[in-house]
Amino acid sequence: MMRTRPLKVALLGCGVVGSEVARIMTTHADDLAQRIGAPVELTGVAVRRPSKVREGIDPALVTTDATALVKRGDIDVVVEVIGGIEPARSLITTAFEHGASVVSANKALLAQDGAALHAAAGEHGRDLYYEAAVAGAIPLIRPLRESLAGDKVNRVLGIVNGTTNFILDKMDSTGAGYQEALDEATALGYAEADPTADVEGFDAAAKAAILAGIAFHTRVRLDDVHREGMTEVTAADFRSAKGMGCTIKLLAICERARDGASVTARVHPAMIPLSHPLASVRGAYNAVFVESDAAGQLMFYGPGAGGSPTASAVLGDLVAVCRNKLNGTTGPGESAYAALPVSPMGDVVTRYHISLDVADKPGVLAQVATVFAEHGVSIDTVRQQGKDGEASLVVVTHRALDAALTGTVEALRKLDTVRGVASIMRVEGE
Amino acid sequence: MMRTRPLKVALLGCGVVGSEVARIMTTHADDLAQRIGAPVELTGVAVRRPSKVREGIDPALVTTDATALVKRGDIDVVVEVIGGIEPARSLITTAFEHGASVVSANKALLAQDGAALHAAAGEHGRDLYYEAAVAGAIPLIRPLRESLAGDKVNRVLGIVNGTTNFILDKMDSTGAGYQEALDEATALGYAEADPTADVEGFDAAAKAAILAGIAFHTRVRLDDVHREGMTEVTAADFRSAKGMGCTIKLLAICERARDGASVTARVHPAMIPLSHPLASVRGAYNAVFVESDAAGQLMFYGPGAGGSPTASAVLGDLVAVCRNKLNGTTGPGESAYAALPVSPMGDVVTRYHISLDVADKPGVLAQVATVFAEHGVSIDTVRQQGKDGEASLVVVTHRALDAALTGTVEALRKLDTVRGVASIMRVEGE
Ligand SMILES: NC(=O)c1ccc[n+]([C@@H]2O[C@H](COP(=O)([O-])OP(=O)(O)OC[C@H]3O[C@@H](n4cnc5c(N)ncnc54)[C@H](OP(=O)(O)O)[C@@H]3O)[C@@H](O)[C@H]2O)c1
Ligand SMILES: NC(=O)c1ccc[n+]([C@@H]2O[C@H](COP(=O)([O-])OP(=O)(O)OC[C@H]3O[C@@H](n4cnc5c(N)ncnc54)[C@H](OP(=O)(O)O)[C@@H]3O)[C@@H](O)[C@H]2O)c1
Repeated sequence: MMRTRPLKVALLGCGVVGSEVARIMTTHADDLAQRIGAPVELTGVAVRRPSKVREGIDPALVTTDATALVKRGDIDVVVEVIGGIEPARSLITTAFEHGASVVSANKALLAQDGAALHAAAGEHGRDLYYEAAVAGAIPLIRPLRESLAGDKVNRVLGIVNGTTNFILDKMDSTGAGYQEALDEATALGYAEADPTADVEGFDAAAKAAILAGIAFHTRVRLDDVHREGMTEVTAADFRSAKGMGCTIKLLAICERARDGASVTARVHPAMIPLSHPLASVRGAYNAVFVESDAAGQLMFYGPGAGGSPTASAVLGDLVAVCRNKLNGTTGPGESAYAALPVSPMGDVVTRYHISLDVADKPGVLAQVATVFAEHGVSIDTVRQQGKDGEASLVVVTHRALDAALTGTVEALRKLDTVRGVASIMRVEGE
Repeated sequence: MMRTRPLKVALLGCGVVGSEVARIMTTHADDLAQRIGAPVELTGVAVRRPSKVREGIDPALVTTDATALVKRGDIDVVVEVIGGIEPARSLITTAFEHGASVVSANKALLAQDGAALHAAAGEHGRDLYYEAAVAGAIPLIRPLRESLAGDKVNRVLGIVNGTTNFILDKMDSTGAGYQEALDEATALGYAEADPTADVEGFDAAAKAAILAGIAFHTRVRLDDVHREGMTEVTAADFRSAKGMGCTIKLLAICERARDGASVTARVHPAMIPLSHPLASVRGAYNAVFVESDAAGQLMFYGPGAGGSPTASAVLGDLVAVCRNKLNGTTGPGESAYAALPVSPMGDVVTRYHISLDVADKPGVLAQVATVFAEHGVSIDTVRQQGKDGEASLVVVTHRALDAALTGTVEALRKLDTVRGVASIMRVEGE
């Protein structure tokens, strides 16, 4: 039952991801038509630099007037792969108003304005799909939203930024410092000229907000996500981690509180045991654990970025949205009925690994241990090393409220015998 | 926009999986209603033994007349978790005829009669979903069918049977023989009283047929799947594997030929390198690799069986089917448009690990090497061990046609100097 009139697709952006979307739409045209039930036609391509040569793209389709393209009124699906907040946001809204559904890869926009965009889509009876916005090619949003729709997700924990994973992996395997590893990542094209969004955890935080929202059926704003970057992770931290049978990863963690009444979302570097499957995620790969009541522990692994993997996710959404269109229906929209409160970082229960530079004299350990006890933080292990009047104390705690751990560290800093806090890192994945 | 009239669900079977489906439908009733957009009501439960006490199930709902239940005409969704071919097949067909869509966990039935059942569903405008039929809780069918709908899948390779993985894992970690490990699996409830379906690879072959069909948009029948069980894997095989830095897993492998013009599907034990992620899949877990043109390599990991994980997958399908019903639509049905030929095992390209017992005299290696060369099979490594006139020769080949490898082994058996072929195992995962 193939329809012969094609569905019209407008492509906004034709860079790393967009050029691959266009390429696959051409090379896989017959397969796409079979799977959708109608051919899809690339009807226009909006870019910034119209004169740039774009292989495989008919120059007659190229325009710099993205707004006019989405306003044509005959477009069935708009694929937004420009990135950033504006003009992407206005273009998507205008697309909904003019009859199109939207597929986007834009995590920054979805994390910031997901609720409003979903509302606009719903109002106009359109679809808004964005599998590519989180973890590139890895099917994650669809499994969370659909496969686990009958289950109760308690935790999503993963490596969702390939750039930082590449850097941390380098530091781990070569003993390099942060700057050296970043330079290599930049030289190899794994890090952008301005790596801020990646290394400061903004990119991962956007993904955490999106994942937490879907997993917990609750709106989680970008500001709700506790964010710490990885620029202060040192070679010494990796040596400490190794001493504990751990490595260091930048993790995105979305959790339901034990009582089920609230959720948290956070991004920070953390030590994880080498035996944990996330410890062996190499290079620019991503991997995400999902824990739910009935299914137990699931893991999803694959390339987290790159033009063609991201295009694979975009095209999966494109097929779904086209099928919906032909069926005169839309897929599941935003689900935020649970409306759980999002708790601050202080409410998270976690473990700390703390290295202290201390005076090498009797009684220091007792003093330090008292501070932990006063804050209700129970110590798992302590390692003391000293030479020449200088000493270091490495403390690993049991699970405690993050607020209590922060309070402990503040109090430790005030002790005369503590010369400095060399590093603090959370321990996860047990 | 919550509809108040509930959707009616009939549960066929209330055993390991069915009882968990019923439990979650009750405990998660409010969440399910929110996610679907209407409440779901358990309208009837068909079983074999009506008098058995079933916790949490209203005895008034229980019936032994499954046929009457699916014929009521007011049932929206039938969940089939009886298993086996009949009466499951007739009940599903009758359900379609009487207005219901179907969610099933029945791999045996889907592998044997998937095409006919899909046709029946399509004819009556109903859904047929069966995520739980392959790899339990792991979202695999939906990602293959929907997330990768814009991509070209080239290979699906995985561990899809938890019982055999438990046994092989035991053999690997303890050095136990097959029977001893099977006995332990039976005692712990990981193997059924009659383990034939698992250890002979029937269960994995059914899953391979289903996966290959979806991945390649081609009908793959159960008979098209080359199947070898794992009952002949020995402790000695594990020692050989270790010597090569490998372990042994029962794999399901669905591949597109290099030229893209045909596909193969097979289940057999194989050596895989310890560095391969599948090597570290422990106990009764499942894991599946999917390789595609654009996405590259994805992995899905999780519990492959068990009442509540399987129920999670069933309920995800139930939510999807209910949403479709409310939208007056159906999800993607069978996609077999590619209709690629399914090639026999002889056409598969793979590697062999062969242990030969040979006479300990000069010239044997030359004779053996000649046989390989005559069959066009190139040797990667040979290891020779000898004492007291007895010797063994372990040969690992490069990639070659399976037919050529089989021919080589037949010719080797005919050599006077070859006393016996101690073991043959394929090597995969490189
Ligand atoms: N790259 C990845 O691996 C990856 C992975 C996951 C998600 N994503 C997301 O995918 C999106 C696109 O990323 P990308 O890497 O493809 O970006 P990119 O290579 O920088 O491409 C951006 C494209 O948008 C066009 N563009 C910029 N401003 C425009 C405007 N005002 N009007 C019309 N077109 C405009 C550019 O035109 P010119 O070609 O003329 O410059 C370019 O074609 C982002 O949201 C990103 O977060 C990317
Ligand atoms: N168990 C798993 O981990 C798992 C995982 C994935 C998929 N599956 C699939 O799920 C399905 C169910 O498996 P299961 O382990 O739940 O099986 P099970 O424990 O043996 O339960 C079968 C149920 O079907 C009922 N039944 C049997 N014959 C019937 C008939 N003629 N009419 C009505 N009811 C009948 C039984 O009734 P009584 O209770 O009265 O005996 C029982 O409630 C199978 O297709 C299986 O392959 C199972």
